[in-house]
Order: sequence, then structure tokens, then C-alpha cells
Amino acid sequence: MNSTVVADSVRAAIARNAASTLLARSTALAACTDKPGEILRTFLSPAMERVHQRMQPWFETAGAIVSVDRAGNLRAFYPSASNENSPRLLIGSHLDTVPNAGAYDGVLGVLMGLALVEGLSGRKMPFAVEIIGFSDEEGTRFGIPFLGSRAVVNQLDDALLGKDANGITIREALSDYAAGHPEAIETSLSSMTTGYLEFHIEQGPVLESKKLALGVVDSLAGQSRCHLVFNGRAGHAGTTPMLLRRDALAAAAEWMTRCEMIASNVEGLMATVGQISAEPGGVNVIPGTVRCSLDVRHTDDTVRGQSVRVILEEAHAIAARRGMQVDAEEYHAQPAVHLDSAMISLCDKAVRQAGYASIRMTSGAGHDAMVIAPHLPAAMVFLRSPGGISHHPDESVLEEDVAAAIHAGLCFLDEFALFLAEKEGNPIA
Amino acid sequence: MNSTVVADSVRAAIARNAASTLLARSTALAACTDKPGEILRTFLSPAMERVHQRMQPWFETAGAIVSVDRAGNLRAFYPSASNENSPRLLIGSHLDTVPNAGAYDGVLGVLMGLALVEGLSGRKMPFAVEIIGFSDEEGTRFGIPFLGSRAVVNQLDDALLGKDANGITIREALSDYAAGHPEAIETSLSSMTTGYLEFHIEQGPVLESKKLALGVVDSLAGQSRCHLVFNGRAGHAGTTPMLLRRDALAAAAEWMTRCEMIASNVEGLMATVGQISAEPGGVNVIPGTVRCSLDVRHTDDTVRGQSVRVILEEAHAIAARRGMQVDAEEYHAQPAVHLDSAMISLCDKAVRQAGYASIRMTSGAGHDAMVIAPHLPAAMVFLRSPGGISHHPDESVLEEDVAAAIHAGLCFLDEFALFLAEKEGNPIA
Repeated sequence: MNSTVVADSVRAAIARNAASTLLARSTALAACTDKPGEILRTFLSPAMERVHQRMQPWFETAGAIVSVDRAGNLRAFYPSASNENSPRLLIGSHLDTVPNAGAYDGVLGVLMGLALVEGLSGRKMPFAVEIIGFSDEEGTRFGIPFLGSRAVVNQLDDALLGKDANGITIREALSDYAAGHPEAIETSLSSMTTGYLEFHIEQGPVLESKKLALGVVDSLAGQSRCHLVFNGRAGHAGTTPMLLRRDALAAAAEWMTRCEMIASNVEGLMATVGQISAEPGGVNVIPGTVRCSLDVRHTDDTVRGQSVRVILEEAHAIAARRGMQVDAEEYHAQPAVHLDSAMISLCDKAVRQAGYASIRMTSGAGHDAMVIAPHLPAAMVFLRSPGGISHHPDESVLEEDVAAAIHAGLCFLDEFALFLAEKEGNPIA
Repeated sequence: MNSTVVADSVRAAIARNAASTLLARSTALAACTDKPGEILRTFLSPAMERVHQRMQPWFETAGAIVSVDRAGNLRAFYPSASNENSPRLLIGSHLDTVPNAGAYDGVLGVLMGLALVEGLSGRKMPFAVEIIGFSDEEGTRFGIPFLGSRAVVNQLDDALLGKDANGITIREALSDYAAGHPEAIETSLSSMTTGYLEFHIEQGPVLESKKLALGVVDSLAGQSRCHLVFNGRAGHAGTTPMLLRRDALAAAAEWMTRCEMIASNVEGLMATVGQISAEPGGVNVIPGTVRCSLDVRHTDDTVRGQSVRVILEEAHAIAARRGMQVDAEEYHAQPAVHLDSAMISLCDKAVRQAGYASIRMTSGAGHDAMVIAPHLPAAMVFLRSPGGISHHPDESVLEEDVAAAIHAGLCFLDEFALFLAEKEGNPIA
């Protein structure tokens, strides 16, 4: 079959059915977890393998060829109407999760890709579609995010020595994975790939506050991740007078309150301490060592860089005043990213064509699109997040919003075909 | 052999040899650990079992009969010169440790009991000596301290439902232990027990600052232990503006800084947060739940009680201002304890007789003597702690101070015999 523009009422009907299927699939995939009782899927884990197994027949039924690549990304290829050398549209998001996650962050974007090729009902486009389920975006296992998308753009090298809680390096994990999956394909993108589209829940309150189902993202905030170790001196909780203590947790607490204050006073700045541990960890022992994380975000890279400096300097000042040391390191910095204007326009057009109001917005969260955008024209569409809740079991998405996204996505596929044809100076085939 | 007072020069020589043996034994026992690479021994654990196995032949060679009781306490009985109905002196301390502990806290007091009966070189006293190695004083496993000593004075009942990290209750742990040790003796003390003596490292800087080897403890600070849970709301670190967050860790941090400030402003008050955990624990997730411990000590129970109230009220006020909840519970309160004046005098006398200056001091740390003192005339002797360091791998004790303690202890045994004889109106046998 060749590409034929489909009536919009047909698309709306397809989208309504597909939305209900997508939600059921999200629930089914949520059962694939590395930790019973909550949703947790980490890079190359057994639960990730089970997700791949669950998704494979869905993709195959839709006419796509399913593989995994050597970085553990799920790759599903839906061929074009013409030949192997057609342009290729990449649609994707990630399949890993934070600890105790919701069922939609990441997964929804991969299932959107599936819903869109299913929605073509066998029709082929003048471009191939590749759906990608990235193996790591959250960085839960190694504390280093975007491992899946970094691998497909060949930018994993500097992260390869990161270690997980068991001391396994990323390099070792990848090499074990490759050994267990001799069928895994090359990780790099095909040179014919000409665009990237990612659907994702907003994970914030903006669309809900504006009563909108969808938003088109034009830029993503940059983010810094730091690791801090406060080195004080452990001691007995009953025999060391308060003024003679070098309590690493008291120092970290003072720093965390400063950190919160600094972030609250800079418009649009967010700073989060999400992980903390105190050693030795006895009820009656003054903590000698405290390790904690710091996540800082802003859409202006200069503001972010300055803020990280101020916050880490604050840690050093507090430690010095208390006669102790702090090791503070920014181990990951992701600049703010502006998405592709042509792709953004296509998204705007598609959303409007589907009958929805469109707004442009920025993303405070990092997404795989950040890593892909420097290499491919990329765009993102956000779906409203009820209550702005994400990274939490209560994370949800409305079925009507999923239908809106699928409807807009189907419009996008036709808009993208027109765009490619215009770019090549040819009328659509 | 009957009780015969031994010349003091002989005692000094015995003590010098015995001190070196005691230090070697401490090192040997430090190798019995539940966590390779650090010293950790918890209630009824495999490492505790190995400590018992190591100590048994030492006690038996010294002429003592070794048992374990149903609470996992090590019990070594050194008979009197006369008969089964002789008075009995209890000498002991605990064999469990905090995480990443030193080699002397607790263990030293049990090895002191061994060194003293060895120092009698087969001589029998008009009283029996029972050496006890308590199975739990630190509360590391269940968060509830003094399980061993509470068991011997039949005050374990209200602690039996405490759970360890694996959800095992104290009751279940004890019943498993009894099943695996059918030979275990009854836990209660013999009704003939007439005194309790505990040697312990000071774990603080007082004796060192006064250049003294030994100090006689007259009272122990009371302590409160609390558990707090800050319940905020987890969320995405990049999409939730600072002012809309309910960050449980930011709340806990603010509370910890207040807690430190309150304790610093009350003379003699100590407040310590030794344990903390943040959930869900992702680098890029706002913590929704923070659990932490609180340890508060003071020699005046009224001051301690008021301080705990103020500190917990502060937690509620901070949580309320941030639109979140906190659960705060004082799960253990140990009143300050004043030791027995007659026993204290005997210790003073013994220390002086051994040729050392004696001072009276209070203990900021809790000890098994706190639990035993309401039931038996009890006394404690502290040994200088170099650097005041304790609950830390650098914890140490000077060999000369151990010799001083053994010398004084041998003097104590003879003083105790005289004391018993005088009490009964009889000259010493």
C-alpha cells in the first residue's frame, strides 16, 4: 500500500481505540519490575528483558521487525512504501524507570510509536519508522543518565567507567549483555534517519493549569548532577559534647537548607537532594561520613553553572566552619537544548489539525530528546500530567489525552511525509 | 585454696602480663564480625556465636564453667571457696557492637572479668564470680538497646515486638535461638548475686584531659531514643517548582539544624541524628519520605524530657509549615541512673590501693550498668579513651591503663570479700 492521507474522523476513531489499548499495555508492562511491590526497571536488568519480550509480538503484529541493540535498546523497524534507502523517522522514549516509579514515564513514548504504526493499519509511508525503547534515561543503576540514547549517538565513551551498587562498570555490564545477546544489532542510528519524535508525559503542572491535553516542547532545561561526601568524625552520641563534634550529617543538613534557600531565590532554578546516606549509621553514633546527590536545573546554562558553583561553595564553607572536609564533584552536566524549529512547526500543525489547541513550552525534566537533538532534527510532545505527579506510583495520564496524542501523531506522520517531499522538491508520491 | 590477700607488688606483676593478654584477645575477638572489613556483631548473630566459641576455652582454663543463656548472653561461673550458696559477684559488659565499631567497647569489660578470675591464679574467694557477656547493649539490630541486660532482670517483655531489618521480631529471634541452643540456661540472675561491676572504656575525653588511667562512675545520663518519619510528596526533580514541593528531606534537614541548635544551647545536652534514609532515593526524585533516628541524653531527666518534647514539637512545626506530616515517636527512654554508694566506695578504695588517683565521674553513654543498677548494687570503672574516640575503628585503650584496671580489679575482689564479711558481721574467712 502507498501513503494516502486518511480522513480526520477516521484518525479520531482509530485514536480512541488505540488509547485504551495503550493504557492497558502500560499496565501490563508495569508488572515487569526488578522489585516486587513497586515499579523499578534498570539498565539491562531482568525486568527490562521481560518488557522487551512483552512488546515484541505487539510490534510484530503491527508489521515491524524487532531487535535489541548492543546497548540494550529495543529497536522496531516499520518499513517504508518504497525501499531500504528511504528516509527514516525515529519515534521513541525510554523503558527504564526511577525507583518506585509510575507506569507512564518513558514507556508511554515507546507505546505511542507502536500505536502510530498500528494506526497506519498496514499503510506504508514514503519514510520508514523506527521505534526505539531506550535502555536507560533515568540513570537509576549507574547514577549516570541517558545511557541508551548516548549509545545510539556514539557518546557513551566517557561514561563507561561508572559503577553500579555492586561495583560493576557500565563497560562490564554492556559486555556481559552483548555476550548474552549475540543477535543484538549495532547501536548506531541509520544514516537515513532524518527526524526524532518523542511523546512524554509532562511530569509537571503546566498543561493541567491551562486545561490543555498536549503541548509542544521547544526547549529543555539543562541539568547538573553532583555527588557530595561530607567527611566528619564518627563518635559516641553520649560522650562527645555538641561543640566538639564533627557531625557529617549536621553539616549536610545545614548545607541542604542553604541549597533549598538558594534555589528558591532564583527564578526557574530547581535544586534537589534525592539521595542521602549516613555512616556508620548507628542510632547512637555521630555520623562520620554523609554521601548525597545534588540535581540542579535551569533553562539558562549560565544561571545553572553559577548556581552549581554557589551551592558547592556553600558546602565547602559549611564544612570548613565545622572543621571538616567535603568532596563535591559535578559528574554530569547536560546543557539546555533547543529543539528543531521545522519539527516543532510540524508538531504544532499536527496538534491543531487533530483539533487541539497548541502551546509551546519548556521542559524542566531531561529527556532522551536532549541527547538526540544535536544529531537529528528533534521534537517533543507533552501529554498533560494529572496533579503534575510523576516519578511516583500515583503518576497517571488521561485516556482522552492519549487519544489526542495518537490523533495528533497520525496527523504528524502525514505532515512529515509532505515535509520530506517538499524538502526534496517533489510532490508526495 | 582459700581466700588470701595477695601482696600488691604481685598483683601489679600479674596485671602487667594480663593487660597484654587482654589486648591480644580483643584483637582476636575483633576478627569475629558479621561484616567483613569492619567490626560488626549484632544480637544473636553468627559472629556473636564465634565470639562465644573463642572465649569458652579461655574461661575454662581459668576454672570457670561456661554457658549461654536463652537471651544469648555468655555466662561464665567461677565458684567460691565454700559452696553453692555463696554470694555471687557479677562482672560483665556487652559483646555486641555498633556498625564499623572499635575493638574495645563492651568486649573489654567481659575480658576484664576473665582477667580477674585468671589473676586469682586458682585462688577461690568467699564469693562466686559470674562473668557475663551481654548479647546486646547497642541496639544495632533492633534499634532497641540493652536486650541482654534487660533479659537478665526480666524486663524484656515490652521490647519483644521490635523488628529487625528483615521483619523478624525479638520474640522470634529469641525463640529461634532457644531452638538452636537446647543447652541454654535460664536467663535470670541467681538470687545470691549481690553486686555488679562493669569496666568500660570511657568513650569520651574527660580522663585523658585529666591525665588519669581510671575513673569511678557515680551516675549515668538518661537517654531517649526517637524515630521520626517525615511524609512529604515524591515528585520529579525537574518539573516541580521549589515553592510547590513537599520535600521530606528538605524538611528533615531544617529540623536537624534546629535540633543541633537546641542541643548546643542547653548545658550538658546531647542530641544526635545517627540514621537517615530518603525514599524513593533517586538522584532526580524529590524525596517523599525520610526516616531518621534521634538520640537525646542528659543527666537530669527533667531536662532530657523537656528537650525531647521541644525537639519533636519543632519537627511538627516544620512539617506543618511545609504542608506535610511527621510521625515522631519516643520508643525508648532510660532514666538517669545513680550507682550504689557502697560499691562506688569499694571501687575508689581499690583504685587508690592499686596506686592510682581516683575521680568520680558521670557517664554520657548508656551502659548495661544502667539496667542492672535498679536490681543490684552496681558500680562502674572507666578506662581512659585515647582521643575520646569510640564507636569508630580508631577506638583504642592504653596497655598501661588496662594493667591499672586489672590491678584495681584484683584489689576490688579482696575489698569486696572484706565488705561482705563486715556486712554479715563476720571477720573474713
